[in-house]
Amino acid sequence: MLHFGLFGAGRIGRVHAGSLAQHPRAELTAVHDPAQAAAREVAARCGATATADADAIIGDPGIDAVIIASPTPTHVGLLTRCARAGKAVLCEKPIDLDLARVDACWAEIRDSRAAVMIGFNRRFDPSIAGVRDRVAAGEIGRLEQLVITSRDPAPAPAAYIRTSGGLFRDMTIHDFDLARFFLGEVVEVQAMAANLIEPYIAEAGDVDSAMVLLRGAGGELGQIVNSRRCSFGYDQRVEAFGAAATLSVGNQTATSVRHCGPSGTETAPPYLNFFLERYGPAYRAELDHLVRCVEQGQAPSPGFADGRAALVLADAADESIRTGRAVRVSGRAGPGR
Amino acid sequence: MLHFGLFGAGRIGRVHAGSLAQHPRAELTAVHDPAQAAAREVAARCGATATADADAIIGDPGIDAVIIASPTPTHVGLLTRCARAGKAVLCEKPIDLDLARVDACWAEIRDSRAAVMIGFNRRFDPSIAGVRDRVAAGEIGRLEQLVITSRDPAPAPAAYIRTSGGLFRDMTIHDFDLARFFLGEVVEVQAMAANLIEPYIAEAGDVDSAMVLLRGAGGELGQIVNSRRCSFGYDQRVEAFGAAATLSVGNQTATSVRHCGPSGTETAPPYLNFFLERYGPAYRAELDHLVRCVEQGQAPSPGFADGRAALVLADAADESIRTGRAVRVSGRAGPGR
Amino acid sequence: MLHFGLFGAGRIGRVHAGSLAQHPRAELTAVHDPAQAAAREVAARCGATATADADAIIGDPGIDAVIIASPTPTHVGLLTRCARAGKAVLCEKPIDLDLARVDACWAEIRDSRAAVMIGFNRRFDPSIAGVRDRVAAGEIGRLEQLVITSRDPAPAPAAYIRTSGGLFRDMTIHDFDLARFFLGEVVEVQAMAANLIEPYIAEAGDVDSAMVLLRGAGGELGQIVNSRRCSFGYDQRVEAFGAAATLSVGNQTATSVRHCGPSGTETAPPYLNFFLERYGPAYRAELDHLVRCVEQGQAPSPGFADGRAALVLADAADESIRTGRAVRVSGRAGPGR
Amino acid sequence: MLHFGLFGAGRIGRVHAGSLAQHPRAELTAVHDPAQAAAREVAARCGATATADADAIIGDPGIDAVIIASPTPTHVGLLTRCARAGKAVLCEKPIDLDLARVDACWAEIRDSRAAVMIGFNRRFDPSIAGVRDRVAAGEIGRLEQLVITSRDPAPAPAAYIRTSGGLFRDMTIHDFDLARFFLGEVVEVQAMAANLIEPYIAEAGDVDSAMVLLRGAGGELGQIVNSRRCSFGYDQRVEAFGAAATLSVGNQTATSVRHCGPSGTETAPPYLNFFLERYGPAYRAELDHLVRCVEQGQAPSPGFADGRAALVLADAADESIRTGRAVRVSGRAGPGR
Repeated sequence: MLHFGLFGAGRIGRVHAGSLAQHPRAELTAVHDPAQAAAREVAARCGATATADADAIIGDPGIDAVIIASPTPTHVGLLTRCARAGKAVLCEKPIDLDLARVDACWAEIRDSRAAVMIGFNRRFDPSIAGVRDRVAAGEIGRLEQLVITSRDPAPAPAAYIRTSGGLFRDMTIHDFDLARFFLGEVVEVQAMAANLIEPYIAEAGDVDSAMVLLRGAGGELGQIVNSRRCSFGYDQRVEAFGAAATLSVGNQTATSVRHCGPSGTETAPPYLNFFLERYGPAYRAELDHLVRCVEQGQAPSPGFADGRAALVLADAADESIRTGRAVRVSGRAGPGR
Repeated sequence: MLHFGLFGAGRIGRVHAGSLAQHPRAELTAVHDPAQAAAREVAARCGATATADADAIIGDPGIDAVIIASPTPTHVGLLTRCARAGKAVLCEKPIDLDLARVDACWAEIRDSRAAVMIGFNRRFDPSIAGVRDRVAAGEIGRLEQLVITSRDPAPAPAAYIRTSGGLFRDMTIHDFDLARFFLGEVVEVQAMAANLIEPYIAEAGDVDSAMVLLRGAGGELGQIVNSRRCSFGYDQRVEAFGAAATLSVGNQTATSVRHCGPSGTETAPPYLNFFLERYGPAYRAELDHLVRCVEQGQAPSPGFADGRAALVLADAADESIRTGRAVRVSGRAGPGR
Repeated sequence: MLHFGLFGAGRIGRVHAGSLAQHPRAELTAVHDPAQAAAREVAARCGATATADADAIIGDPGIDAVIIASPTPTHVGLLTRCARAGKAVLCEKPIDLDLARVDACWAEIRDSRAAVMIGFNRRFDPSIAGVRDRVAAGEIGRLEQLVITSRDPAPAPAAYIRTSGGLFRDMTIHDFDLARFFLGEVVEVQAMAANLIEPYIAEAGDVDSAMVLLRGAGGELGQIVNSRRCSFGYDQRVEAFGAAATLSVGNQTATSVRHCGPSGTETAPPYLNFFLERYGPAYRAELDHLVRCVEQGQAPSPGFADGRAALVLADAADESIRTGRAVRVSGRAGPGR
Repeated sequence: MLHFGLFGAGRIGRVHAGSLAQHPRAELTAVHDPAQAAAREVAARCGATATADADAIIGDPGIDAVIIASPTPTHVGLLTRCARAGKAVLCEKPIDLDLARVDACWAEIRDSRAAVMIGFNRRFDPSIAGVRDRVAAGEIGRLEQLVITSRDPAPAPAAYIRTSGGLFRDMTIHDFDLARFFLGEVVEVQAMAANLIEPYIAEAGDVDSAMVLLRGAGGELGQIVNSRRCSFGYDQRVEAFGAAATLSVGNQTATSVRHCGPSGTETAPPYLNFFLERYGPAYRAELDHLVRCVEQGQAPSPGFADGRAALVLADAADESIRTGRAVRVSGRAGPGR
């Protein structure tokens, strides 16, 4: 039985607490959140202890692993201390909004033997993982073009947007990781972005709509389309176009009901509305992967270097929209594993 | 060039006139309809002659073939005279509403060498014909179950219903023919019917909704579902369920447009609304089949015996709803080829 | 917390044990199975006790409710004793293969106040329940035709078939219940059946393929198509055809992956293979319904009378294939609630 | 009746000859092609005259309109002479590969009153035109993102590629026009391209795979994905993502047949294989548009200025892949109407 500490009792923290409750070989021991009421609520539901003192988790030798689901600015500090304390770590994305801080973090933890995993949960979605496995097995021949569609049902509130690090570091970062999941390394990034949705996003200095072009190290082309708002719900699609065949992941509905009437036929229900619904199984599979890796002494994946690499692509996209230039990112590989 | 006479300048007659206009080796020479204005209009559009005298067509040695698209009560008389005059005949279904008259007709024409084809156009629909060919080629293994869905967008008017011969002889007859197209002979019929739609149909002594079970000579099971009204348009589907695979024909839309919005996703346009739209290519292929058969001296299919056999099944379905019994129809094969 | 005893540690028993393990207000206390190894295995996984003595469950006042998932011949005896002992009962279908025994059972338990629920789990499938709710809310206008498709991926082994009570009582009984779920009472049944699949089914005196027509008390028509074998997996569809619109439940896949290649496009993965996968959420919702009913002192649904009524329809279908007649079943309503 | 001359008896010329043959108010009078056998074959099929002398068409006052479907280098010369001779002109795309020649052509014909239409046939596809009309009618709210997928089933041969003007001027030009059809003016272009398919394309100095980003004058974002080869046929999709809803155009099959078997379900047939099949109705509607415009004295659309504008975007995409920069194209509007 693997004992977990959880940092952060918000929306994502609760998802992980739920996954732990269902996992037969893991259990939640302690929950940390400065908002003590939230910490106590999550802890109570799982028979765990709530604490406002991070050291009560970091210093507890009975805790084998931690999940860092607290606000982004706290990630690096917690990750560093937990890894140095020898705990396995599942850290939500992004590691940090600042590449220099990410690299400094790595310098601190590189000599620890701790398993570090970054929470790019989409890699564990059964549909996406299934396509990736089939691509890797050669089913579509050479992968030539990767098309990722990723649109949120509704924009986050202004307060969130202001500290989010911007669309590319906050939202597209999942798509950058997906691109790397399929393409391996990405060597070139171009981006175009716009403000089409809510004035408060522009006022926060951010964009709300974006399209990105990518070139993989093997010459493959990739494109990402993002929007902070989508009228028909959470739009999450991937198309892996290969020389011999194409595999795609479509949107998903809660039921298989269809409606036919005078004004339209074959109408499906709204799509699973947001990441909690759409990626519920992925969150559980992600956690299970970490548990297995710790049990077997293997390095989990995606690891620290993957978290860093996705941030490099986000930075490059930002640079591209500022400069109007294609940005080469090969050679920017940094430390990490 | 094959020269055609057309009996009947109504809705179906115009479809055939249109097919003739497009056929490179056929042309419409004369149009007969007691409604002379209609005959003249159709004739003018095709460079043909209008006539109110059927003999002007039957007796014209320059006319090689005729299409009988006049009201059902006139079919047997025209078919008999044209066949005896040596003309190839495409006669709309049903041959007649009365089996005795059908058999009497056959007695009159059996010695003629005329090619006689009955207008079961669905056999020529590219989707249906494609499935039938693949079934015949063994792609699905043994055909075990055949499911036919056939619903009209809206009921015919009362005047039509009163002389239609009833649902089974007027509408289901197409499905009985389709069943025979897939199953070969049918040996047993059960039916259940109801009045759910319009009072005037019940007042005319007819039913408006029906379900039929069929047993093929090879032991296969078949079912038909019919309605005189369908909220979402013309519902025309076939499922051929085999031991090794299943092939199905779905409904069709005019475009490949889909709509996604807050209240529903993947909404397709309304289906092709009725037989003129849905079976346009089938009507043209049907005519082309007759032209080729005449050119090559072969018997067209479906032939007179097929028209009779579908009527036998319609009669059996009527008997089943009257008696509440399964009706065996093997051994009822009659004359005709 | 509701304490459950479980009779039967086979395939279905394990499904229910799994549902209990996930339910926050229910727990499995004791497992009975003459096969003690199976009972112990299931019990161990849930922290329950295994027993070979049914009375250890029936006589335990700490057990509030039981699930009867043992072989059909034991249902009536266990149901009777548990209900008389005041326990809430979830009994797998069918109550019994013999209507006389079902009625005798009811005579024994009618005066108990025990909640009795019959395991027609499909009523709790989110897609089916969703369509039923929308039909009940009037979304499709009057329901005119109900089309149920139900085919198993592969036939049960000969030993099972011989004691199953036949296709209608064993397999179609789920579809008869679904028909009643949508139509309310059914007043007339016609059936046609065949042996198309495995000789051992015919040798056991059973059929392996069937089509059934139903008439609802409100005049609606219904049809069921069944096969013991389906090349493409578990085929579970429902179409509710109404005057104003149609709602349908389609088959379901584990992922939303599609494949496009030279020989075919838009290929979906195989369907969820059998009832454990397809109806997993339904089994959990079914159990939750019982828990809520017991908590709130309400009668669960479907109840004993529903179990009896589905058996009446199965008997009628058997009679129809023996006699070749439509069988009226109105007025056959029996005891039960 | 409008009398047409046709320049070019190749693949596209024959499509137009076929459309003319079906049009009730147009007829083909003369066919010009240096390959006289081809000219004679097309002419014979339509009752037209074949000629090797372009002046026989240009100088014939009985010819009202011409279709220019000859090789690209001949377009400007023929267009100029025919327009100056007062004939209505339907010129296949591109007007020319060189913008300077296009502008010189305009200088020659600007004072003529001739109707000039450029053959961007996709604007007349019923699905695409339908979506465009619904977008224009406000059905999806503000159009925010336009996603165009356009892949050919197989690359053109080396000889064609060498003189094609490159992927952007030869193939993407259709997508650039579509983008303008939806977005109005495009103000910025970025592109990324690669050689992934056939060495002979790289040897010809061209690319075979490309992705393009576009910014509309209204701030909208657009993306295009192109490939010269697609394993599953001709891939032609459009997605118009709006603030209130999304409309999309999917690929199309010749029939509505689906296959379900052990290894996959819901398999559709291959898509309509190439532009002759996929855009057959569009070619006919395009011609009908020109006929109506001539009859009513209106300017056809897309016109000369549209042909020029698409070429400007192709040039910009070329510049972007050479320089790695986003290219602004506003202010590059040139002469033409």
